[in-house]
Amino acid sequence: MKRPTAKPSIGLRRRKWASRLSFPLAIALLVVCATAVIATEPGSTESVLDMRVAIDTLWVVFTGTLVFFMNAGFCMLETGFCRRKNAVNLLAKNLIVFALSTIAYWAIGFAIMFGDGAPWLGLNGFFLTGADNSPATGEAYSGIFHSLNWAGIPLEVKFFFQLAFAGTAATIVSGAIAERIKFLTFFIFSLFLVGFSYPITGHWIWGGGWLQKLGFWDFAGSTVVHSVGGWAGLIGALMLGPRLGRYKNGIGVAMPGHNLAISTLGCLILWLGWFGFNPGSTLTLNPREIGHILLTTNFSAAMGGIGATITAWLYLGKPDLSMIINGILAGLVGITASCAFVSPISSLLIGLIAGIIVVFAVTFIDSWQIDDPVGAISVHLVGGIWGTLAVGLFSVGPNIYPWYGNGTGPLGGLLLGGGIQQLLLQLIGIVAVAAFTVAFCSLVWLVLKVTIGLRVTPTAEQIGLDITEHGMEAYSGIPETDDFGA
Amino acid sequence: MKRPTAKPSIGLRRRKWASRLSFPLAIALLVVCATAVIATEPGSTESVLDMRVAIDTLWVVFTGTLVFFMNAGFCMLETGFCRRKNAVNLLAKNLIVFALSTIAYWAIGFAIMFGDGAPWLGLNGFFLTGADNSPATGEAYSGIFHSLNWAGIPLEVKFFFQLAFAGTAATIVSGAIAERIKFLTFFIFSLFLVGFSYPITGHWIWGGGWLQKLGFWDFAGSTVVHSVGGWAGLIGALMLGPRLGRYKNGIGVAMPGHNLAISTLGCLILWLGWFGFNPGSTLTLNPREIGHILLTTNFSAAMGGIGATITAWLYLGKPDLSMIINGILAGLVGITASCAFVSPISSLLIGLIAGIIVVFAVTFIDSWQIDDPVGAISVHLVGGIWGTLAVGLFSVGPNIYPWYGNGTGPLGGLLLGGGIQQLLLQLIGIVAVAAFTVAFCSLVWLVLKVTIGLRVTPTAEQIGLDITEHGMEAYSGIPETDDFGA
Amino acid sequence: MKRPTAKPSIGLRRRKWASRLSFPLAIALLVVCATAVIATEPGSTESVLDMRVAIDTLWVVFTGTLVFFMNAGFCMLETGFCRRKNAVNLLAKNLIVFALSTIAYWAIGFAIMFGDGAPWLGLNGFFLTGADNSPATGEAYSGIFHSLNWAGIPLEVKFFFQLAFAGTAATIVSGAIAERIKFLTFFIFSLFLVGFSYPITGHWIWGGGWLQKLGFWDFAGSTVVHSVGGWAGLIGALMLGPRLGRYKNGIGVAMPGHNLAISTLGCLILWLGWFGFNPGSTLTLNPREIGHILLTTNFSAAMGGIGATITAWLYLGKPDLSMIINGILAGLVGITASCAFVSPISSLLIGLIAGIIVVFAVTFIDSWQIDDPVGAISVHLVGGIWGTLAVGLFSVGPNIYPWYGNGTGPLGGLLLGGGIQQLLLQLIGIVAVAAFTVAFCSLVWLVLKVTIGLRVTPTAEQIGLDITEHGMEAYSGIPETDDFGA
Repeated sequence: MKRPTAKPSIGLRRRKWASRLSFPLAIALLVVCATAVIATEPGSTESVLDMRVAIDTLWVVFTGTLVFFMNAGFCMLETGFCRRKNAVNLLAKNLIVFALSTIAYWAIGFAIMFGDGAPWLGLNGFFLTGADNSPATGEAYSGIFHSLNWAGIPLEVKFFFQLAFAGTAATIVSGAIAERIKFLTFFIFSLFLVGFSYPITGHWIWGGGWLQKLGFWDFAGSTVVHSVGGWAGLIGALMLGPRLGRYKNGIGVAMPGHNLAISTLGCLILWLGWFGFNPGSTLTLNPREIGHILLTTNFSAAMGGIGATITAWLYLGKPDLSMIINGILAGLVGITASCAFVSPISSLLIGLIAGIIVVFAVTFIDSWQIDDPVGAISVHLVGGIWGTLAVGLFSVGPNIYPWYGNGTGPLGGLLLGGGIQQLLLQLIGIVAVAAFTVAFCSLVWLVLKVTIGLRVTPTAEQIGLDITEHGMEAYSGIPETDDFGA
Repeated sequence: MKRPTAKPSIGLRRRKWASRLSFPLAIALLVVCATAVIATEPGSTESVLDMRVAIDTLWVVFTGTLVFFMNAGFCMLETGFCRRKNAVNLLAKNLIVFALSTIAYWAIGFAIMFGDGAPWLGLNGFFLTGADNSPATGEAYSGIFHSLNWAGIPLEVKFFFQLAFAGTAATIVSGAIAERIKFLTFFIFSLFLVGFSYPITGHWIWGGGWLQKLGFWDFAGSTVVHSVGGWAGLIGALMLGPRLGRYKNGIGVAMPGHNLAISTLGCLILWLGWFGFNPGSTLTLNPREIGHILLTTNFSAAMGGIGATITAWLYLGKPDLSMIINGILAGLVGITASCAFVSPISSLLIGLIAGIIVVFAVTFIDSWQIDDPVGAISVHLVGGIWGTLAVGLFSVGPNIYPWYGNGTGPLGGLLLGGGIQQLLLQLIGIVAVAAFTVAFCSLVWLVLKVTIGLRVTPTAEQIGLDITEHGMEAYSGIPETDDFGA
Repeated sequence: MKRPTAKPSIGLRRRKWASRLSFPLAIALLVVCATAVIATEPGSTESVLDMRVAIDTLWVVFTGTLVFFMNAGFCMLETGFCRRKNAVNLLAKNLIVFALSTIAYWAIGFAIMFGDGAPWLGLNGFFLTGADNSPATGEAYSGIFHSLNWAGIPLEVKFFFQLAFAGTAATIVSGAIAERIKFLTFFIFSLFLVGFSYPITGHWIWGGGWLQKLGFWDFAGSTVVHSVGGWAGLIGALMLGPRLGRYKNGIGVAMPGHNLAISTLGCLILWLGWFGFNPGSTLTLNPREIGHILLTTNFSAAMGGIGATITAWLYLGKPDLSMIINGILAGLVGITASCAFVSPISSLLIGLIAGIIVVFAVTFIDSWQIDDPVGAISVHLVGGIWGTLAVGLFSVGPNIYPWYGNGTGPLGGLLLGGGIQQLLLQLIGIVAVAAFTVAFCSLVWLVLKVTIGLRVTPTAEQIGLDITEHGMEAYSGIPETDDFGA
């Protein structure tokens, strides 16, 4: 393996200058200087810029793998929260969905989201074609992904990171519609979500689209990723209807998860993954900014967990483990939009409120007989909306943190005396993304309903999807008790 | 820790050349040179120092996330080693404890541990206030965390890393007192441990306190983290008494864990996490030092596992899986204090002895009818004491490894002909930390006992904490056999 | 996000100063400049080269830990795919095997694989002795690991990374011979595999041996790691014979795994680990190359999963979860040899074919009554052969990707018009490695058979290895149904 030697670089520029100099000694000095600084070992032509590109690449690969690992987190979380007879189905869905996301996002999604084009969607860069960002040259970018131009890492690394995000949106959906959807239906829906819906609204906010230009801010995706996944899941859950026996005479019947050990593991993997999700969204390693985001992200998660524990204890009478898990996740979703823009103290409040909200949201959604087996709508949709609003409430505004830079970043939040403008902008974004996602997903779900169908047969649901859809069971050799709610 | 200073380097060569030059063009040249080196692309003002800060930040964030992930390791390890009827309780405790640690360590603990102040404890920097370390400026530090000044990364990143360590201490305790403690009692104790006890003794050793000045060395926390957690757990286990039915007529009744699959997963996650715990404690990326620490850490873990397997096979008649797990962990705890100071060969010995000791320690502690469901006292307290002594026995002494630097680092160990001095210093530290931690924790446990109580009711213990404390069970739909020991 | 622009940086200050100066002061300035650039803080003498070594070290430590974590992946995968009564045995084997690998590879394996010596094996560097690579000095290397000289990171870090690979080979074997092998027998075999067999063939390909010189290419180990593990497992499975009751009257009796939740987790951990396995094999952080490898690796995994799902659905009638898992793993194994040498489109094809092949391979191997409980032979041996051939079919050839460098790297592949030469070279390598590994492993298995024996007694097998070999069970407190196939 050789180190990159491509670029014409600094050395040349300096040699040009050198030709204007007269005194021979200067030339000698120059050579020595250039040799010492630029070519510290024979054959090396690396510069500080090369190091910056290398560090940023390492940073994004590191955080991207953390976000990829969130697939394992969601997989364990959702599987454990559902009933044993559908465990294989949930495991299989969560495993294959990233594979499908990879193809859909590569072929279409990434281009729509980050390609140049209209304010509504990107129109080129399909199949990851087009000029690379050419970071190592230090030259002005001349490719077709202008909205990602500010990051100097290779295009493939940007794609890897963004793909991990897109996969997250798809995997959120699977929780809300679990235990009754057809295997194939979920896959086709996922392809449409990752190929079209997610990247279109993503383009508006991160791809140089109209919401970005308007001044809507969502640092790491409370809206872009979580609300979108939440809306898609909500529409799916509504269209599917509740699981058999989930509501009897208007009263909810608990269908407890079959393996809270793996659910808790899933929560901890997701917490870990969020240290990639939020700090990694910088796409460049700015030490102060990353330190700040780590702090706010963890503060919000902690307070989300504490808030949900106390709320559940007071409101439900017991420190319910699934509420603690969902509280931590709500805290994480809640800080995602604002993690770089709010003070640590604000992040404590944002998390606390998220943790309190999620307990009531679960109860509220259940009271509408919307059956969300894992609480995905409460965590990701409600938490995502809260997090997006939090920018308009708590943002410190420009010229406070150095990484805001050049006046970009949200205006000061309402609660910090910055006026109501940013909050209104955030509201516009929430409503716009909601409108599009609900419309698009409704259409896709509807078409799927009248074609291949959404829901398995009642018999299959009663027996369990593992046997009926996959012909196998998750825990062979371990007996089952009588089933719940079917 | 000092940065590598070995090489005779470029700077010298350039100064030699410079002394031969004069004349005005030198100035022009100088400007060009400065521009080329410092501003390698338009608008860039980055320097080699910026790169160093960026790399160190990435290093500490990477290793910090590994240490954070140890929460998942402890959670799986402890839950799997306990009985099924208390699984939800253990999962919930291990999940929420990091949230509580976050708040306690931010508000109080970090300031006490690393703030400037008395030799006994830090007195400023509460709530992470005070001047930042300002690494990116390259200016002399003028804040209030002098004991962390040697590391050039942002203060928030230092806090994140240290928080992950503090959380580890708290989570060690939960294993030793499992299956009988009240949920709320554990939380309050954790707040005191992370807010006061852990940081006070931590200040002595890592925060510029009296033990550090005396010459006591604990590189990554055999005493600071593991022994402290172990002592706290021991006192808790003593105060609580054994689980119901654990000892009948003076004879121990085995209460086997309910899920060794997740316990083994937990062990592997902890092994992984230790590659952050020990090498990350450098807080700066010194390649040679990190390579060395990786080697010694892994060697000790491997020999700990092998030693415990063989010992258990010979002594107990079977290669007991829980002993293999605890042997690996004991090897890891055992090398933690000395990983940067001992040779690879010594690390093999340290691990081997730790793996042998842990098997006998488990038996010994059990013979005293101290009920430690997961072996936390044997691994973390006994292993931590052994590891701390190992510095005094095996340390190579100054001027062997370049990262020792300027005569800092422990004296040569007794077994390497360095005399007994370092061993005595290590003993002083062990005794001092033990005395304080035992006294402090006894007081807190005692106050909790007479106020809200330590232990659940016998009925609750018999039914299991999952139903009685949380109103749910971990494995819904999977039947239970008759219970052990209740 | 902008890069930090806050600070009124050195460049500006220097230019301002420069304009006020002339003549003799220039010399003084020059000294200052040199100090500022090279030694930006007192005592610092760091250069761009130092940064490169630091970044590469961080890269290899990061990817090495990912590969290490694959131990947890294999452990969960294999344990879940086997029967409950042997769970402790599988957990213990997968846990201790890395400890044994550490010792064997340190003492012997690494020296044989990368030490200087004959084209057939390395002959020095045992116990990791010998001159270090001394990267930080920038001097020409003068040690005894010439085949690793191209990477500038410390020797210990190279060892750590390569050890993680060696451990992988050993852990592959444990799956194929599960549920009937003696505990001690497996260990002794592992020592021979990691100490001799794996490093000898590894020396041929990565250590400067005869296959490397011939022009055989295996970027990250389709042959070096996976086929070798697969061959060792195949011979073991043949020598052991099938599990009791696995074939009745020539018809296979399914023995389903007992915990597909942890198997799926294992698959996701392995997928994650492969982002270390393949990109990390660069041993130096080349951004473009890493981005490319991430892309091809993930593409192949995704298409492997999709290919296996569809094939299983069509061929077996159901989207079998274990086939999805094995499809993803086959896709990963399949791209391992060629990940840096093929186009993204090719990687899609390579993965797709791997995913299709694995389904038929499982059926085919089963039809020969070779009992491989977890499908390790199909995934690692068949997938490894396919992956090695894929280099000869799909390699883009030199002068396409900048990281090929100076004409090194495989010739163009047959399907890309590069002729048949590389394919033949790959075939030679596959055959040579197969011949040696089969011969060596047959000998070791045979000697073990006639000495301590390979297989547990039929009674022990029927009762389960957990009780008979370890005296414990994995899921205490959870009842069992009647057992399969015994």
